[in-house]
Amino acid sequence: MSLVTLLTVFGTVALDTTRTPFRTETRILGGAATFASISASMFTQTSLVAAVGSDLPADHTKALRSKGVDTKGIVTVKGGKTFHYDSSFDYDLSNRTTNKTELGVIADFDPVIPEGYAKSEYVYLANNDPKQNIKILQHFQDPKLVVCDTIEFWINGGRDDVLKMISKTDGVVINDNEARLLCKEANLARCAKKIMSWGSKFAIIKKGEHGTVLFTSEGSIFPAAAFFLDEIVDPTGAGDSFAGGFLGHIAHRNKTDFATMKEAVIYGNVMGSFAVEDFGVKRLLGITKDDVEERYRKYRNLVQF
Amino acid sequence: MSLVTLLTVFGTVALDTTRTPFRTETRILGGAATFASISASMFTQTSLVAAVGSDLPADHTKALRSKGVDTKGIVTVKGGKTFHYDSSFDYDLSNRTTNKTELGVIADFDPVIPEGYAKSEYVYLANNDPKQNIKILQHFQDPKLVVCDTIEFWINGGRDDVLKMISKTDGVVINDNEARLLCKEANLARCAKKIMSWGSKFAIIKKGEHGTVLFTSEGSIFPAAAFFLDEIVDPTGAGDSFAGGFLGHIAHRNKTDFATMKEAVIYGNVMGSFAVEDFGVKRLLGITKDDVEERYRKYRNLVQF
Repeated sequence: MSLVTLLTVFGTVALDTTRTPFRTETRILGGAATFASISASMFTQTSLVAAVGSDLPADHTKALRSKGVDTKGIVTVKGGKTFHYDSSFDYDLSNRTTNKTELGVIADFDPVIPEGYAKSEYVYLANNDPKQNIKILQHFQDPKLVVCDTIEFWINGGRDDVLKMISKTDGVVINDNEARLLCKEANLARCAKKIMSWGSKFAIIKKGEHGTVLFTSEGSIFPAAAFFLDEIVDPTGAGDSFAGGFLGHIAHRNKTDFATMKEAVIYGNVMGSFAVEDFGVKRLLGITKDDVEERYRKYRNLVQF
Repeated sequence: MSLVTLLTVFGTVALDTTRTPFRTETRILGGAATFASISASMFTQTSLVAAVGSDLPADHTKALRSKGVDTKGIVTVKGGKTFHYDSSFDYDLSNRTTNKTELGVIADFDPVIPEGYAKSEYVYLANNDPKQNIKILQHFQDPKLVVCDTIEFWINGGRDDVLKMISKTDGVVINDNEARLLCKEANLARCAKKIMSWGSKFAIIKKGEHGTVLFTSEGSIFPAAAFFLDEIVDPTGAGDSFAGGFLGHIAHRNKTDFATMKEAVIYGNVMGSFAVEDFGVKRLLGITKDDVEERYRKYRNLVQF
């Protein structure tokens, strides 16, 4: 019996060592696909494809399952090491310095997906090797919507592969600075147009504390201020949680019209705002859909005039 | 017969030389009070207090009057020079370099106001010497709302005077970087709290292309994305036009409740978005209240979800 999977997330499940001037957390559960899938699972049935090493504590995959994430797509490479990312934040938590990046088992991962995942209607390619992303797409039968993110590491390492990946997606979610780097262009509206000229139908530029802007190839624009927080504990995973909330809401509604995309952007902002309230995925693990809906209403109330 | 003035703006009327990689405009009408008063005059009866030199072309004051600005408060210092600001923008129009600042007659201005202005219910202190700002406030009988802006020049030159000025106002409108400089604090929410601890009842942080955030001493917050423009011609005066639109709408409604302040922030954003569409005040001179209302509706439509 095959399970119909609505949303599949492919990317890193990692061990993060995160240092802020206030606290250090060592080898906690992290990774773009982790944040995105937990976030998406608040909205829809979400499956996760990732490679991990045998050093990943069983509690970590248990935590994912506790939020309803289907972890059958996690491949454990025996004797291999889980991707480990060690970084430090400065005093105002806005600048991150990378101390160490140990790719481990993800370096040579040849992505495979459990049989049931092939029917996924929604696919999110979290910050992974664009070559692997292109490869995994061949395993899906006919997804309605494929969205990817990318980071400096891949843009610098192989911009052509990133462009090729974008040509195979419907939408791109990307940080402002990485959009500028990728597009060789300072103006974000022009960056978005360039991304869409490569084959994507929409582009969402994430501006951190300044919120997000959604651009569509039909010329529609939706700028959204970030949810306002007094206190941020750990900014790690905000963008990935945004993407999970965005895709999760779209998959839940099973619609991709502009009105639904705008709601999805706000749900994305809401999920990002939860993620940064504690270290790693701690806060995301502790919230319910009611908390999400309450903050969505609070956000609507905050920005309305 | 004394004229009841609703809003008085005090600050610089200047000659601006503005250089972008695309064009240079020499000694055009500029200055914080110019942008603010033209912008405010779209909403309410606005009077302008400023010192200029005899080199200011008559066409410039005529332009102000053509928009309904009461220019009786402009003092022409015979033989003196009008404030001249020469600056260059880089390719993406986001960084400005000052080439020359010639204070001219504003350096030793002892502000006086025409008799009728004393009854002004609303006063906006544009980017001027905080000492002069404190002095001019004594001439007003009992204003309902006094708002000021300030810039790096005065913060570096006399932070204590800036703090004293803030203690005598009801609200502060300030750029993000200048808020950080003034408050010695990176987090903008904490900056706003600090500003309000000095006696102001609200603070609006302007974040350029990222919009604005309004904070009130009652703990209310209103983040607003900027109106989205494909093309910016000259960013000069955006913040001053924001302040003029903000104060203008409040004076027009003659209310200072939170709902009115939120509307005023959006009108401020709208006026800032017009200002940057052409060099100097050119665009502001060409628009009508209908254009303003149309863009306000467009903005509402843009950000709603």
